[in-house]
Amino acid sequence: MSVRTPDPDPDWTPGPDGVPPPNVNPGWLSDIELAETRRRLPILYIEAVPVRVDGLGQVVSVGVLLRARPTGEMTRTLVSGRVLYGETLRDALFRHLEKDLGPMAFPQLPTSPVPVTVAEYFPMPGITAFTDDRQHAVSMVYVVPVTGTCDPRQDALELTWMTPMEAASEAVSAEMEGGRGALLRIALASVGQLR
Amino acid sequence: MSVRTPDPDPDWTPGPDGVPPPNVNPGWLSDIELAETRRRLPILYIEAVPVRVDGLGQVVSVGVLLRARPTGEMTRTLVSGRVLYGETLRDALFRHLEKDLGPMAFPQLPTSPVPVTVAEYFPMPGITAFTDDRQHAVSMVYVVPVTGTCDPRQDALELTWMTPMEAASEAVSAEMEGGRGALLRIALASVGQLR
Amino acid sequence: MSVRTPDPDPDWTPGPDGVPPPNVNPGWLSDIELAETRRRLPILYIEAVPVRVDGLGQVVSVGVLLRARPTGEMTRTLVSGRVLYGETLRDALFRHLEKDLGPMAFPQLPTSPVPVTVAEYFPMPGITAFTDDRQHAVSMVYVVPVTGTCDPRQDALELTWMTPMEAASEAVSAEMEGGRGALLRIALASVGQLR
Amino acid sequence: MSVRTPDPDPDWTPGPDGVPPPNVNPGWLSDIELAETRRRLPILYIEAVPVRVDGLGQVVSVGVLLRARPTGEMTRTLVSGRVLYGETLRDALFRHLEKDLGPMAFPQLPTSPVPVTVAEYFPMPGITAFTDDRQHAVSMVYVVPVTGTCDPRQDALELTWMTPMEAASEAVSAEMEGGRGALLRIALASVGQLR
Repeated sequence: MSVRTPDPDPDWTPGPDGVPPPNVNPGWLSDIELAETRRRLPILYIEAVPVRVDGLGQVVSVGVLLRARPTGEMTRTLVSGRVLYGETLRDALFRHLEKDLGPMAFPQLPTSPVPVTVAEYFPMPGITAFTDDRQHAVSMVYVVPVTGTCDPRQDALELTWMTPMEAASEAVSAEMEGGRGALLRIALASVGQLR
Repeated sequence: MSVRTPDPDPDWTPGPDGVPPPNVNPGWLSDIELAETRRRLPILYIEAVPVRVDGLGQVVSVGVLLRARPTGEMTRTLVSGRVLYGETLRDALFRHLEKDLGPMAFPQLPTSPVPVTVAEYFPMPGITAFTDDRQHAVSMVYVVPVTGTCDPRQDALELTWMTPMEAASEAVSAEMEGGRGALLRIALASVGQLR
Repeated sequence: MSVRTPDPDPDWTPGPDGVPPPNVNPGWLSDIELAETRRRLPILYIEAVPVRVDGLGQVVSVGVLLRARPTGEMTRTLVSGRVLYGETLRDALFRHLEKDLGPMAFPQLPTSPVPVTVAEYFPMPGITAFTDDRQHAVSMVYVVPVTGTCDPRQDALELTWMTPMEAASEAVSAEMEGGRGALLRIALASVGQLR
Repeated sequence: MSVRTPDPDPDWTPGPDGVPPPNVNPGWLSDIELAETRRRLPILYIEAVPVRVDGLGQVVSVGVLLRARPTGEMTRTLVSGRVLYGETLRDALFRHLEKDLGPMAFPQLPTSPVPVTVAEYFPMPGITAFTDDRQHAVSMVYVVPVTGTCDPRQDALELTWMTPMEAASEAVSAEMEGGRGALLRIALASVGQLR
């Protein structure tokens, strides 16, 4: 499985035939089905930029994930993941924040369902600023203050906290995958923290 | 096909075996495939509230579609439709505006990709204010000024222009399908036209 | 002083001549100067709708202030107040939340400086939905989750917590001053809580 | 008068005593009164980023004004100006667009009163990214498509059309006054055009 935009680990182990037990959510897709669907439909994602805020709500630092790719290359990315069948955007946002930042991050989800931007990823470059070679994905991007302790799980090696100015820099942008440096700048702009 | 959230007419006629000719976009789904996919993934939609504005950009009237359902019942709805594989949100928005309002509506698409709200439709009531018995759909809602002549096509019988106050009324809400009365009010609120 | 949109209590007592001591912020205006300025310039305000949210950030209740007017009449209103010279919008928002909800409300100020709506108050009715007979005021409206205990001070008798549906009702709107029932509905719409 | 954020030319000529004729809007302030008020209250401004859009509403070019300062220095700036007493934000936006771009620009004012960002200018640097040595100004910033011919008037020498990428560049930022390079980037981010 690509490290790009990881899909949720199912909460069960497939049997020897690779199929889920009968009580499993029908919305769960096997790897083959998911690969097939990805060539047919835009896939809905959420992405989150975790931030620390001061007492007046102003963003003072920005969390960026560092991941190792199967090739050994290190890339930076945001909290992200698919919205599942039957799942609300808030549920998906919370689930992926917990998956990527651990259960003690205490994220403060936004009161509004309106994202700070919508990122459209296409397999072929040039249509938008964002690419994902596996699929056409449409991602609702949120800025989410976290008040607890972040402890990245899974394949994220580390969460790096940066100032807004560092996060918007060319150096950080160059390390982010799929054009997400632009996404980070747009998110910073939405909170008035782009200079 | 349901009148609810109509899928695009393919630009070709299926052969006697019901399959598309070989040059057709692989993102096109047959009715059976679409029905299957709808039980597995949230489906991405756009919806648009067409409006007329005065010289200062203020919304003075709101367009609501009137449709006949197969049962003969008349319901009101918004411009809406699926986002196809490989299609940008702007392309989908333009395509559905043209489909529902005709080629002379001259819509002024928004400069920002951020929707005025995001509506989440579930087959089962009670999760959100919106229901769609066929699917889990997530819809990006936009307010779109139109400057030309609207000539509804397909199964829309009529486009009715109302004042913002009429559009927000209980009477109109009661006639709108899937909870879209709430959507219309949220759209009016976003342009400062809810009292 | 009107109960409408109260001005800040100065932190000092004017001398017998009614003028501030020399170390006072030059941006402070005497009652007479303020009355004069109000006939010459639009006055910048902030307003806040305090809310309680669930673990997923969804608004579950809305706080509305109840005030007694000098006439004995009871009216409902929002947290509001002037932005002073040299004060940031965040500082003004925090100061007025503390003034109206007490020091233990623990408001979570928004990360974005963009308000959910901008309300324009004019002395004469009919220009917008909002009136203020003392002045032309332009108010930046924010929805602010509070996590602590609210203990209204000054002339606010009580903070009433309501469901979003109650807050949007005609009954509550009719009790709100200056057209702020519409403002409350627009704020609810911005968080997807208007039906 | 400073070239920074020009105040409106009154539509009359003051008499030899410098006072307006009796039928003039009481909200008009003499230069001395305005200078005095600027030390006492935040002053409300609007700013606009004029853009050209393609048939799908996407921003393809951005208009930036070039002005000569009294020192002979050339600086770049945005459409901007004060909101007068009794004037709506839309009226102010339209008036300043006409003042800076001429009567044939045909601006399409936004349907929503919510600005893309709020810029806070202080006389002293370091509080926000924006400074204005004359005053504390709070500016509501809008992105406004124009469809006609722009013919800058007054002290603006020229309107330069740039691609979004040029407008976001360091070179252009360095030429913009009062920190407005950051404002331009935030505006571009709001329309998904920042890379």
